[in-house]
Amino acid sequence: MISGKNYIGNRSSALGDVTFKTFNPELNLENEGVFTEATEAEVAEAAQLASKAFKTYRNLTGARRALFLEAIADNIMALDENLLNRYCEETGLPQGRAAGERGRTVGQLRAFAELLKDGSWVEATIDTGEPERKPLPKPDLRKMLVPLGPVAVFGASNFPLAYSTAGGDTAAALAAGCPVIVKGHMMHAGTGELVAKAILKAAEETGMPNGVFSNLNSKGIDVGVQLVQHPDIKAVGFTGSIIGGRALYDLASRRKEPIPVFAEMGSVNPVILFPKALQNRGEALATTYANSITLGTGQFCTKPGLLLGIKDASLLNFIEQLSNEILTIDPSCMLHPNIEGNYVRNKAKALDQNDIVLKADYKGKLPENYARQAVTTVDGKTFIENPTLHQEIFGPYCIVVQCNDMDELQTIVGDLEGQLTGTVISHNDELFLYPDVIDALQNRVGRIIFNGVPTGVEVCPAMHHGGPYPASTDSRFTAVGVHSIKRWVRPFSFQNWPNDRLPHELKNENPLDITRSVNGSLSKVKL
Amino acid sequence: MISGKNYIGNRSSALGDVTFKTFNPELNLENEGVFTEATEAEVAEAAQLASKAFKTYRNLTGARRALFLEAIADNIMALDENLLNRYCEETGLPQGRAAGERGRTVGQLRAFAELLKDGSWVEATIDTGEPERKPLPKPDLRKMLVPLGPVAVFGASNFPLAYSTAGGDTAAALAAGCPVIVKGHMMHAGTGELVAKAILKAAEETGMPNGVFSNLNSKGIDVGVQLVQHPDIKAVGFTGSIIGGRALYDLASRRKEPIPVFAEMGSVNPVILFPKALQNRGEALATTYANSITLGTGQFCTKPGLLLGIKDASLLNFIEQLSNEILTIDPSCMLHPNIEGNYVRNKAKALDQNDIVLKADYKGKLPENYARQAVTTVDGKTFIENPTLHQEIFGPYCIVVQCNDMDELQTIVGDLEGQLTGTVISHNDELFLYPDVIDALQNRVGRIIFNGVPTGVEVCPAMHHGGPYPASTDSRFTAVGVHSIKRWVRPFSFQNWPNDRLPHELKNENPLDITRSVNGSLSKVKL
Repeated sequence: MISGKNYIGNRSSALGDVTFKTFNPELNLENEGVFTEATEAEVAEAAQLASKAFKTYRNLTGARRALFLEAIADNIMALDENLLNRYCEETGLPQGRAAGERGRTVGQLRAFAELLKDGSWVEATIDTGEPERKPLPKPDLRKMLVPLGPVAVFGASNFPLAYSTAGGDTAAALAAGCPVIVKGHMMHAGTGELVAKAILKAAEETGMPNGVFSNLNSKGIDVGVQLVQHPDIKAVGFTGSIIGGRALYDLASRRKEPIPVFAEMGSVNPVILFPKALQNRGEALATTYANSITLGTGQFCTKPGLLLGIKDASLLNFIEQLSNEILTIDPSCMLHPNIEGNYVRNKAKALDQNDIVLKADYKGKLPENYARQAVTTVDGKTFIENPTLHQEIFGPYCIVVQCNDMDELQTIVGDLEGQLTGTVISHNDELFLYPDVIDALQNRVGRIIFNGVPTGVEVCPAMHHGGPYPASTDSRFTAVGVHSIKRWVRPFSFQNWPNDRLPHELKNENPLDITRSVNGSLSKVKL
Repeated sequence: MISGKNYIGNRSSALGDVTFKTFNPELNLENEGVFTEATEAEVAEAAQLASKAFKTYRNLTGARRALFLEAIADNIMALDENLLNRYCEETGLPQGRAAGERGRTVGQLRAFAELLKDGSWVEATIDTGEPERKPLPKPDLRKMLVPLGPVAVFGASNFPLAYSTAGGDTAAALAAGCPVIVKGHMMHAGTGELVAKAILKAAEETGMPNGVFSNLNSKGIDVGVQLVQHPDIKAVGFTGSIIGGRALYDLASRRKEPIPVFAEMGSVNPVILFPKALQNRGEALATTYANSITLGTGQFCTKPGLLLGIKDASLLNFIEQLSNEILTIDPSCMLHPNIEGNYVRNKAKALDQNDIVLKADYKGKLPENYARQAVTTVDGKTFIENPTLHQEIFGPYCIVVQCNDMDELQTIVGDLEGQLTGTVISHNDELFLYPDVIDALQNRVGRIIFNGVPTGVEVCPAMHHGGPYPASTDSRFTAVGVHSIKRWVRPFSFQNWPNDRLPHELKNENPLDITRSVNGSLSKVKL
């Protein structure tokens, strides 16, 4: 069932001699199927084929591309239990999560299909000419968004479906009109192959050009490096660690022709716990946060890893309650022994720092690859002075910082590296007492949450998932929601172009009936 | 009148010992006024002050920022002849050009003020919550664009007003809510100082925070390097050479926190001359293009530097006519002896290449710093094989390539580096005969022009000025028109945020009466 081969367009290929297997962390054994890493020649072939496919694919109508995306969604659903089982075998995550993530993945594909069918997303902008204007005629100018070219997508370890083969980056790029080459994550190469075949079947069913999609296996870093450096690749999407994302960004920016890299990387997702909120509902908050920190074994980019409060009795109580609550939660398995190993190492490194206090650490006997959730605490001054404590620890861990006063808390917030999210826990209007703290937090994050948890990223147009570096390499774009299509497109202007040769989106008669900006006003008017 | 000092916010400062003067190329002598280059300490002070100002400035309403931009425009107009005279003294350009560029500059400032007063530019997007949704409540999410932080703007040699101190980059950044530090171009430091004072006066008149604008003098590259590397600078705008733009891009991408650089760089602006068009109106085209090539002494980024045709009698005729026509045009002065020196050197280098034929080169006696317009020609094969011939030569120069056939022409077009513009000269529907050529051209440029010239960049929303690298460092953004504001902003989401603490743009009652996307539909609805 799993061939272990690369897919270069619709052709499978396995020329290399580097092979690997995926791993079932729950059972602590290797899965069936041997995967062959793509060779440099195969990478180049996929890139060249994508470049060739782009010539056709970029000129297909949005309606045609929508059919392709819908067929991908259908074909993924048709994989049924085969897909869910393989997902679980390669992640240790439960079936419910697999089904939920599959739902999110096909939901994203269908949302992009709807965006394409509606058609207004291209931001069509028309300024009609004034041939009689003095001293110079005003030309007729018409602008819309067009695709950049082939996009390399790097699969994420923690989202084998929603941020990998047919995940958000791929869906957005295919919707934009860009062919996609996926460098699959080695930890879930089987899940990736199943989805890749669903995509390729959809491409054939809907008459897409060969090369619109390729899937490459990769064990080490070589395939990714070769892809990012290939001149036919015009943009990169990545979800993962700061080290990995930054390495790709550096490679891309040092090319002869630099290309944009959108990398969604690390975040500690600071949470500010205002005093009255802790006084009034510290216990409930402890339960809520114990669950958020351990959700998915803490393997979410939005896991709250840093809680900030003012040192007082309520905060000390909260820390005790959080520590008690978190130990009542059954530990779970991490995605892979390597990830569990990193968690153990990073936690130990944090605990090695001066003046950090370990408040909770799961002690019971556990199967291999299971993570021991932990809560630590430090005072504000120690935290400020020790950047090691600012780093993300991927897994069910959080640090609670006890600040002397609101000034110290504000200093910490203002000096944070860029974050995906920031959360404010407030008793009614309490947050209004600290506008400078809120303002400082807003300037460091991409999304701010009132009285909630950062985990659970709603997929909708108003969601921004991204933030100042290093939360992402370019805070001007989101990785979630249909607006993520903007990463893969550029504006293009036609000047005095014959109406019948314009794309439908820009024709006088507005045949797609889309919303356009015409001489400064949004409308569906025909000209 | 000209102090020669730096302006760090509203305070003038001249701590350095590197000084310089500007040069009048028309009279071939130095202008009055001695400018002091900013020291590293002054650069840092300006950056820190901008960062401090950002805390206030980012929270001002669009209406307040609009007043500031309008006051800048008014104060620039009030400089009257003092400004126009200094402009001409520092560029050798005629008064008409000075007045025209001033009109464009204040027009841009006022266009951004209108954008702010309208308010809809922030792309407000609202997805209302569903607290009862199962299995999880849907949060209320509201997104809008917010400013990135202090922006460094590099003045352009060829647009002392429209792409320098209060030019497009500055206007867009100030409109976005970003403080600006201008590194003035050394060739027109006096013009820059006059405009900087107009901006600072406007800042004071409209109650803007000190540090919202600074103006730094610079003779060499140090000030620019220090600015781009300063941690308080969050984005960079540049208009100039590929070497300069790439150097800044490299510095910015190697920072600990990489920042976006929008550099609008070189372009040869290819023009495809289809055969029937040349047969029918070759003579008129020769006149039109002789004028476009020499406009502003060829010192426009949109100057047509590369004309492509199929070798036949009409093309040979056109080359003769273009060569004759261009020699009837009175030569004019370049911006600076250095620029004229580069022009002479680059032209000589092109003429040193094998198989290039010089068809026209102005031979008469000329004042110092005047440019001799020139036309050269080569065959397609020679052009393809010699990348030296593909480079932009800044000045009144063009090369006409005689292709053997349309395949050869298409190969040349497909292999071009990224360009700001591409132009198609067609007899009626002639271009429809060559869809692959047009498609290849579209993929290499940011704007495509039908039967016109690339010079003359209309400032309007549908204008895209930018293109694939190296036309610009990020083809996803424009340098001209109000959409250029998008370079300096990032999306930001509020989740379940209290209505009365949201920015006006996102409040239920839509107090600014702006167009928003509410649950997927554009409207001005109140919630």
